[in-house]
Amino acid sequence: MISINQQKYITSLHLKKFRQKYRNFLVEGEKMVKELLTQQRVAVVTIYGTERWAAQNAALIQPFYDKFNTTTEVELKKIGTLTTPNQVVAVAMIPEQAILSSIDPNVLTLYLDGIQDPGNMGTILRIADWFGIRHVCCSDDTVDAFSPKVVQSGMGACFRVGILEGIILSDFIKIHPDTSVIGAVMDGQNLFSTTLFGSGILVIGNEGKGIRPENENLLTHKITIPSGAENGAESLNAGVATGILVAELLRNKLVY
Amino acid sequence: MISINQQKYITSLHLKKFRQKYRNFLVEGEKMVKELLTQQRVAVVTIYGTERWAAQNAALIQPFYDKFNTTTEVELKKIGTLTTPNQVVAVAMIPEQAILSSIDPNVLTLYLDGIQDPGNMGTILRIADWFGIRHVCCSDDTVDAFSPKVVQSGMGACFRVGILEGIILSDFIKIHPDTSVIGAVMDGQNLFSTTLFGSGILVIGNEGKGIRPENENLLTHKITIPSGAENGAESLNAGVATGILVAELLRNKLVY
Repeated sequence: MISINQQKYITSLHLKKFRQKYRNFLVEGEKMVKELLTQQRVAVVTIYGTERWAAQNAALIQPFYDKFNTTTEVELKKIGTLTTPNQVVAVAMIPEQAILSSIDPNVLTLYLDGIQDPGNMGTILRIADWFGIRHVCCSDDTVDAFSPKVVQSGMGACFRVGILEGIILSDFIKIHPDTSVIGAVMDGQNLFSTTLFGSGILVIGNEGKGIRPENENLLTHKITIPSGAENGAESLNAGVATGILVAELLRNKLVY
Repeated sequence: MISINQQKYITSLHLKKFRQKYRNFLVEGEKMVKELLTQQRVAVVTIYGTERWAAQNAALIQPFYDKFNTTTEVELKKIGTLTTPNQVVAVAMIPEQAILSSIDPNVLTLYLDGIQDPGNMGTILRIADWFGIRHVCCSDDTVDAFSPKVVQSGMGACFRVGILEGIILSDFIKIHPDTSVIGAVMDGQNLFSTTLFGSGILVIGNEGKGIRPENENLLTHKITIPSGAENGAESLNAGVATGILVAELLRNKLVY
């Protein structure tokens, strides 16, 4: 049973305003909640699950028994954002964000310059997670990494990758003045014939507009993913471009 | 003005069954229709646009004047699948598909083994388009490349990349017995330490289940995208994985 106040609180977390106010976010569905409960970094606030789910996951819930509430599919539908039937929703703490000076300039960090699509955002966080990138910095107009859609499409990457919100690229550079600032532009050097940088900050531009001019001016390395098309292909999706860039920049570290 | 029969015909094309029966598909929105009208490969059947759109695009429409019908935003909403206001919808011919023996085994071809998500499908077609891959073969349980969602997320890639539907991988291999059959699996050779293959067929598995066992048995080269994560990352999105694989396999051809 979920009280009216709990219901109000949980649905308020659908909105960025309240996620930021309370520093809480929603984790929905069996797969994501299981990931949440089996990691150490993100604190669990409350769990709302059906009796069936609780019975099937007794060992998983045991360490969180004081945070668990029994509910029904009908109630879960009211408080959640998923359109498919769901057995469990959890409220988790947004982890405290790292300070810029704590970021190691000798590894690769991502800077997202106005990424808008939640699916792309989730995909990019999965790439960071896969390739062991520790920090993803986000401009203040980048889609919220803790929105339900991004949490879902990110497949739990937000439990492992450090996210820094509201970051201005020039602030990062002031603190790390010697770092490489790498970005993909239309007329840059061929990605595959550049010397590889396994360190610095890789700037990923907005889906339609690319890197904003004031940030493009800060790039120390302008690169382009070469096209093999004879007559003008359209473009690559922002997630795919990020994947190709990151894999190539980290290539030497990934060969074994 | 769109007649009831036209309306029935166009909305029938929302469904694969009727697209296959009539070999027609829908192209929606100003950007996609502009791409359709400025390419040579896919034949245009009819165009339904608002007066405003027609006035703004007189030169573009001119070669198709006998195929153009004036309509309204309200009618377009009825016949189309877009949720945002739209000015134009076109009906186009699905191009005749290439025969397997006409595919050049000395270039890279993609084989999609049960890709389900329209967004992933569109992303993969954009990758093929970008890197100049001429043919994408699809298993019969792969999402339809000419569905409205795939056309939209593919950003016009289906106008340029040759799509072969209902292809059985072993049939391709019978016709091209010496070709490399490359696939990403969990325990393959590190992608970045393999000798590069710029030719053959790259098999992309289903989002959840990967490459089906009977096709995995046909692989001549099993590769893995190495992870840089210290404690088990989840996985890469199918589109991102395809992008990284294709970029790496074609790397030597892309350096200039």
